[in-house]
Parts: sequence; structure tokens; C-alpha cells
Amino acid sequence: MSVLDSLKEDIEQINRLLPREADGELTALLTDSQNYSLSAGGKRIRPLIVLLTARLFGGKRASAMPYALAVELIHTASLIHDDMPEIDNDDKRRGKPTNHKVFGQSTALLAGDGLFIDAFSLLSSNAELDDAANIRAVRILSRAAGSLGLVGGEFIDVLCEGRKIDIETLRTMHSKKTGALILAAARLGAVAAGVAEEDERYLDISEFARGIGLAFQIVDDALDRVASEDALGKPIGSDERCKKATYLSFYTPEQALRLSEEITEEAISYIEKYEGSETLISLARELAYRRS
Amino acid sequence: MSVLDSLKEDIEQINRLLPREADGELTALLTDSQNYSLSAGGKRIRPLIVLLTARLFGGKRASAMPYALAVELIHTASLIHDDMPEIDNDDKRRGKPTNHKVFGQSTALLAGDGLFIDAFSLLSSNAELDDAANIRAVRILSRAAGSLGLVGGEFIDVLCEGRKIDIETLRTMHSKKTGALILAAARLGAVAAGVAEEDERYLDISEFARGIGLAFQIVDDALDRVASEDALGKPIGSDERCKKATYLSFYTPEQALRLSEEITEEAISYIEKYEGSETLISLARELAYRRS
Repeated sequence: MSVLDSLKEDIEQINRLLPREADGELTALLTDSQNYSLSAGGKRIRPLIVLLTARLFGGKRASAMPYALAVELIHTASLIHDDMPEIDNDDKRRGKPTNHKVFGQSTALLAGDGLFIDAFSLLSSNAELDDAANIRAVRILSRAAGSLGLVGGEFIDVLCEGRKIDIETLRTMHSKKTGALILAAARLGAVAAGVAEEDERYLDISEFARGIGLAFQIVDDALDRVASEDALGKPIGSDERCKKATYLSFYTPEQALRLSEEITEEAISYIEKYEGSETLISLARELAYRRS
Repeated sequence: MSVLDSLKEDIEQINRLLPREADGELTALLTDSQNYSLSAGGKRIRPLIVLLTARLFGGKRASAMPYALAVELIHTASLIHDDMPEIDNDDKRRGKPTNHKVFGQSTALLAGDGLFIDAFSLLSSNAELDDAANIRAVRILSRAAGSLGLVGGEFIDVLCEGRKIDIETLRTMHSKKTGALILAAARLGAVAAGVAEEDERYLDISEFARGIGLAFQIVDDALDRVASEDALGKPIGSDERCKKATYLSFYTPEQALRLSEEITEEAISYIEKYEGSETLISLARELAYRRS
């Protein structure tokens, strides 16, 4: 089994690591709904970046795993809320009915709230690492996910819906909405490996993550127009129909895909000097060169 | 000015302590909506408990303030989501239109999400205390607020709406929905004062907080039936109309008020031996003996 596959397999254990209570009957359905979305698959890019970065810098898988899961909890929470009628009003996600379609809107709302907060329980209870590392992890993830990060990016997205926006605004939105959490994932991996903030490796992995976060979003926009509905798991062209701001307002799909490849290669240049960076690099290329 | 008034005045500075960004134009409306709910007043019970507990055990106000504000952020986030059509569908809160009535549902959803997460930025960036204290604070608050705490309690509340429930379920619901955050507030105050988990003071303040949390909820239920609409800031009898489970399914309003006073006096017995506990005790009595 490849490193990537073995890590992915570990990540799929995510539900077993969720906090559960002894007398859990009353909140069993809340946990069910969270598990439904957590186990809905997806590419697991963010936790993979945490684990691969930790591995690259000599960290242990067990130390990095709670950080990896915490990032996936935040990501899943944001998808649950993003799909709700208040935001995108999507019926499907990854080919399955969205959380609120299965469990109802009040449960979906609370499932997301719970996951956002539980992520910080995971970080702060990571017994493999010391308080200094764990508090750095909380600082990194809370800033990346909160009102100035992911949630702020979602807000800009809602605000801009149906309006013509400039490329600066689009970049700001995506750097928050997608970029911030991918950057946080890489940094959490570095923290799990004991890499200090002023260490060159921390700066390099940050540049790498910034690049692949941007490339990832550009490919996503391009694929929304060209890919088949089956492969994407959501109606194709849905972004365009809803007049969402995408990179395709500024580039043709072909230009966008080329741009994403260029950005990815530049991102890779920051980490290829490190021994063992091949898996992280191949993940980056897989994302940039994917066509579905 | 009394200690209580001076602390309250400090807490009202809450908006100045929210994270804001330099290029904040795009997310200005998100911050506005958060500030709207944060500055809507209320009794500020939770942050007051943090500050008064810290003070009781010799902690500095400046050390405890970020913890106090973090608890209020979580509380405010939960009120914003609680008022939304998915849960209680309330138009008014503290006599003012609810967040989603003013800013719309998508903004209210994201405003709450952001506040839930930003609370952990506040805790983890508390420069007045060390990493060990701050990570304890994250652990306490995330457990109290997450799927096993506040959010779980909200879920049980939604689940039980319109059904007949037993008093055990009602107690579980309230111990999560109201009790957990009040308990966390007291514990955060103790952490800010450097009180260890196995310290007798930690156990005593926990018992105190458990009692006043329960008493607070019982009074709330009783007042919902007897108080005037103006004093409560929400339509009287609204809980009953919605068939929400309350202590009045088990007690008369008079019995409930008496019970709450008894619980409060027992709670007070845990802390009256500590010099300087008068302000905390008078806050507890103020809550239990209030009639509006």
C-alpha cells in the first residue's frame, strides 16, 4: 500500500475519533448526522496535507492525526452549512443528499456548530504533543477558520453572489474560503513535527500550501464548466447558473487549467529540496492536473 | 462604582476586542452583525462569573478578560443560531429584532459560525497567561460548548419540542444547554487565577457554578409564565405556546421559584468560606431572586 493510501485509510477512521458520550441516546441523531457528512468521502486533501507535512519534517503520524482530523471537522462543518438554504441551497454533495436533506435543517445547523467547536477539543486534547504545540495549533486553526478566515470567505462569497467582482476580490475570497484552511493544514503538520515558526521549513511549507490552495480553487472553477456531473457529484455549471464569481469570469477554462499548473509547479519549487517530499509533490500535481 | 458595575463596564468593551482586519471592507457587514448581537446587552452573567471567580482566587482582571469575552462570544453565537427559523424562529431578543431579522439568514448563520470559532482565537492568544493555562481554557470551553455540551443541549431541546419528556431528560438538556457554559465560566476564572484542577477551590467553584446554572434555568422557566413581556424582552408564555419542555411541566411557578432559591443557597455554601466571595454570592442571589 502506498503512503498516501495508508494515510487515507487512517483518516477514514475519523468517526471513531469523534467524541461520544456514555449516555449518548439523546444526542445520537446529532452524532449520526455528523458522521454522515464526515464519512461522505471526498479527497481528504486537508488532513492528507497535515499528515504528509508532519511526515516530511520527521513528525509522528500519531501526533499529527488529531490535528488532521480537526481540520477535516472544520471543513465538513463548513460544507454542511454551505449547502444549507441560507447559503448555496444544494441538494447534493459528493453524489449524496446533503446533510439537511437527510436530517433536516435544525439538525444540520447544530451538526455544523458542534463540529466547528469539537475541532478545538481534538486539538487541545492531543496527548502526543505538549501544551506549546497544541496552543499553537489552536491559534493557527481558529484564525484560519474564523471570521477573518474561512467563515469570512464564505461571507464574501454570499455578498458577491450575482454581482460583478474584480479579480482582487475573487482572490481575497478564495484565499480565505479555500486557501486559509489548506495553509493551516500544512502549518499544523509542521507544528506536529516540532517545526518553529521562524524555521525556514515553516516558511517554505507555507508558500507551498498557499500555491496549491490557489491552484486547487482555479481547477475547481474550471472543472465546474468542463467536467461531467457524475465525476463532480454536483450539477455541472451550477456555479455559473447561480452567477457565482469564479476564475472563469477572467480566464477561459484552458487558460485557468494552465495557470493552475504553473502555480503548482512554483509551489513545488519551495519544497522539492527536502528529502521525502515526493508524496506531497505528487499530491499537489494530482490536484492541479486532475480533470474531474 | 461597585465591583460588579466596573466589571460590567469592562465587558461592554467587547466589540473593541473582536478581531478586525485592516482590509476589512468586504467583511465589514459580518462584523457589524456580530457586534449588533454582542452589544445587545443582556445580563452578562457568564463573563461576570469568569471575572469574579478569577478575582476571588487572586487572578488579574486583565488575565481573565479574554476568557470572559470568549465565553460571551460562544453564548452570543448560540443565541443567534437559536433564534433562527431552524430552531426557535424568534423575531425578538432582548427587546430588539433578532440578528437574522436585521441582517438576513445567511449573515446570521455565518455570524454565529465566526463567533464560535473566534472564541478560541481569543483564548489561545491570551498573552497574560501561559500556554498551559490557555490550553486548559480551550479544553474546558470546547467541551462545554461542543456536541457534548451547549450544542448537544440545543439539539435535545429541538428533539423534545412538542413531546412529553421526563424530568431526567429535562435536567440533562439544561445541564448541557445552560449549565455547561456557566460551569465553564467559573472554571475559566479559576484557570485564569492559576488554580489547579485538583485544588479544592476548583471543586468548590464547580459545585457553586453547577448550582447557580440549574437555579438560573428554573427561574427562567418560571418567569416565562409570570413576568411581563417588557421585562423579559420576548413574548411571555412563548415557551408554553411552542410546547417547549420546561420545569413548569413538573412544578407550579411558586414551587419552581422556591426550588431555585434552595439550590442557590446550597450552591453558595460551597464558596462562602472564601474571603471576598460576597460579590459572587450577591450575583447568585440576584439571579435566583429576580422576578423579571
